[in-house]
Amino acid sequence: MPQTETPSRHGLVILYTGNGKGKTTAALGLVMRAWGHGLRCCVIQFIKSERGRWGETLAAERMGIAWHALGEGFTWQSEDLARDRAKAEEGWALAQAEILSGNHDLIVLDEFTYPLRYGWLDVRTVVDWLRTHRPPEMHLLVTGRDAIDELMELSDLITEMRAIKHPYDTGLAAQRGIEF
Amino acid sequence: MPQTETPSRHGLVILYTGNGKGKTTAALGLVMRAWGHGLRCCVIQFIKSERGRWGETLAAERMGIAWHALGEGFTWQSEDLARDRAKAEEGWALAQAEILSGNHDLIVLDEFTYPLRYGWLDVRTVVDWLRTHRPPEMHLLVTGRDAIDELMELSDLITEMRAIKHPYDTGLAAQRGIEF
Repeated sequence: MPQTETPSRHGLVILYTGNGKGKTTAALGLVMRAWGHGLRCCVIQFIKSERGRWGETLAAERMGIAWHALGEGFTWQSEDLARDRAKAEEGWALAQAEILSGNHDLIVLDEFTYPLRYGWLDVRTVVDWLRTHRPPEMHLLVTGRDAIDELMELSDLITEMRAIKHPYDTGLAAQRGIEF
Repeated sequence: MPQTETPSRHGLVILYTGNGKGKTTAALGLVMRAWGHGLRCCVIQFIKSERGRWGETLAAERMGIAWHALGEGFTWQSEDLARDRAKAEEGWALAQAEILSGNHDLIVLDEFTYPLRYGWLDVRTVVDWLRTHRPPEMHLLVTGRDAIDELMELSDLITEMRAIKHPYDTGLAAQRGIEF
């Protein structure tokens, strides 16, 4: 509740996972809420590409929120695993730099479970680094399906988004402003 | 995907439910995404009060998003059921007016499952009205725990937010910019 605001900030590690819609969407909402309080936010998207001009990237531009979309380079094809791995390492290096920069109060690593799950990055190395290097007052939010155990251990708050009903089931096309 | 944008918009009814954190947060994210595309958004909060100066209301002010917080009047005490019911009816009348106004492309009814679940409003009447009066191109998003069947039938997209781990479990206080 607003009345119980703590004088010193304790950075939370938050994880939105599960197979349902709403993980990235909830991350955006957290960014909007934090931005409303004047917190400095940074979003790093590991899978989604910038090409599409998503509603969220248009909004982030208008709001002055730092935004990196790295997804363009991922092939999702096993034959180019070396390239995907290099791309994931590049993204992780960027994430590390932003975490250490002192420029952000909240950092979102969107779809970050994938490079961990697919083995493009070593889970233990990543989680150990986060445990030792994340500034204690910084909030960190990770989204993506199939979160691994090490990441769940690190997290203070975990919500699973579970799909109950999906418009694709009834043949509806994706709607601009809602799904992208 | 952005590439498959449909020429004519089909308004979706979306429901975020479940006992986990992230329902209202995901609603905010949807608002941010829609706002990024220039969609006109309106949020009606049935339970949360305006007094607290939540991050989301501060953000909505800066973004020029229509916002109504009705929660102040709810007593949550069985002895004043008549007052809660009157307050819920007042909120529902406002929601109906906003839905019919033609001013919004996306309307969020935040925590709207509660007045339905507690019987302050008649579910069948509300759902029938939405089915017959909502403009077909308007998106409607409802959040709240314990969604009732009639509302789930009406919805095109339902995600259940399930709590896996919560910072209260480890004794952490609510953090400004994250939880409010």
